[in-house]
Amino acid sequence: MHPQNVIGRLSLYRRLLSNHLPTGTQHIYSHELANLARVSPAQVRRDLMTINCTGSPSKGYRVDQLIECLSAELDHPTGQSVALVGIGNLGRALITYFHGRREKLAIMAAFDREPEKVNRLFHGCQCYPLEELEHILKRDDIRAGIIAVPATEAQAVAERLVAAGVRGIVNYAPVPLRVPDDVYLEEQDMTTALERVAYFARKRPPPRRED
Amino acid sequence: MHPQNVIGRLSLYRRLLSNHLPTGTQHIYSHELANLARVSPAQVRRDLMTINCTGSPSKGYRVDQLIECLSAELDHPTGQSVALVGIGNLGRALITYFHGRREKLAIMAAFDREPEKVNRLFHGCQCYPLEELEHILKRDDIRAGIIAVPATEAQAVAERLVAAGVRGIVNYAPVPLRVPDDVYLEEQDMTTALERVAYFARKRPPPRRED
Repeated sequence: MHPQNVIGRLSLYRRLLSNHLPTGTQHIYSHELANLARVSPAQVRRDLMTINCTGSPSKGYRVDQLIECLSAELDHPTGQSVALVGIGNLGRALITYFHGRREKLAIMAAFDREPEKVNRLFHGCQCYPLEELEHILKRDDIRAGIIAVPATEAQAVAERLVAAGVRGIVNYAPVPLRVPDDVYLEEQDMTTALERVAYFARKRPPPRRED
Repeated sequence: MHPQNVIGRLSLYRRLLSNHLPTGTQHIYSHELANLARVSPAQVRRDLMTINCTGSPSKGYRVDQLIECLSAELDHPTGQSVALVGIGNLGRALITYFHGRREKLAIMAAFDREPEKVNRLFHGCQCYPLEELEHILKRDDIRAGIIAVPATEAQAVAERLVAAGVRGIVNYAPVPLRVPDDVYLEEQDMTTALERVAYFARKRPPPRRED
């Protein structure tokens, strides 16, 4: 199991290789990938070495082999399902955003307590009433979840996900969660991000304007 | 100017005090706020001391004074506008999410290149054609921006924002950006977050199930 930062960069490298190279690019040097990823070439080489991926000194890495190597590390061999709780504006935007992005990773089940949001298919994701959470997660062996409910409901939802077997959570609710040590948590705090950007934008010296 | 981590925690404290206390709570001890924020009581006291906020040893902090203190640090005195670029599903979800959440911080202008998405008001946010970006940002003195465009367009949009005077950016596009040193950048990488959660959820020992 690699550390969090390494996995983050491997995920980024794959995305850059898949989407940001000119069509037909067959080889890439570590310094070129490093430049795209905004890290050092030595970092790229170290990261790729940890997954036993090596390039040739003269031609660099073969792009198709590199993507295959990265996918072998990042993807479940036969595909992995994710559950989403909270089908509000943000939840729907997340389903839309991730729809079709990855062959081996998809939001396959979504839950909400409001009856008008459930019992339908939304971008290939089946929407269920919240009370079916435990049943569906066990039935489909879902181990990763996304929380997109209001702040006041987030901790209770996290506890239900964990009790149902989830071992990794992305939290979009604007409140920090407490989860057991064996559960991996990513806080995506949109409010703090925006308040921080607003603060530093205000404190930084204003640019010179010609007009 | 306080460091990034301090501002992040101050933003969180204010949110917890405003939204997560039982109605009528007038005083709070540092250990109670620390518990809500998932940090140590000493951390809370240090953070609040940096903004000259002190409590009484016997009763703790007065909640209303604390919120006022935090707001004086976090908010622009008369309010601050934010620009959003990219009115897709994610951009619209962000406008909806932040609508009415803060009195002194609001997404006031949004931009898109697609004609059918602009020249209308969406949750109080005026939507403009992308070519008007420079004009509107200068006119309204907007210094903070959110990028929610596809990965391929993100760097070019960041450069236009910076050239137009923006000094703080939240990036939701799934590609890292390069900005000058005097611009504060928050990367909100949703794809890496989900891929990382999926990876660690898979690697953690499976929970014991009773059935």
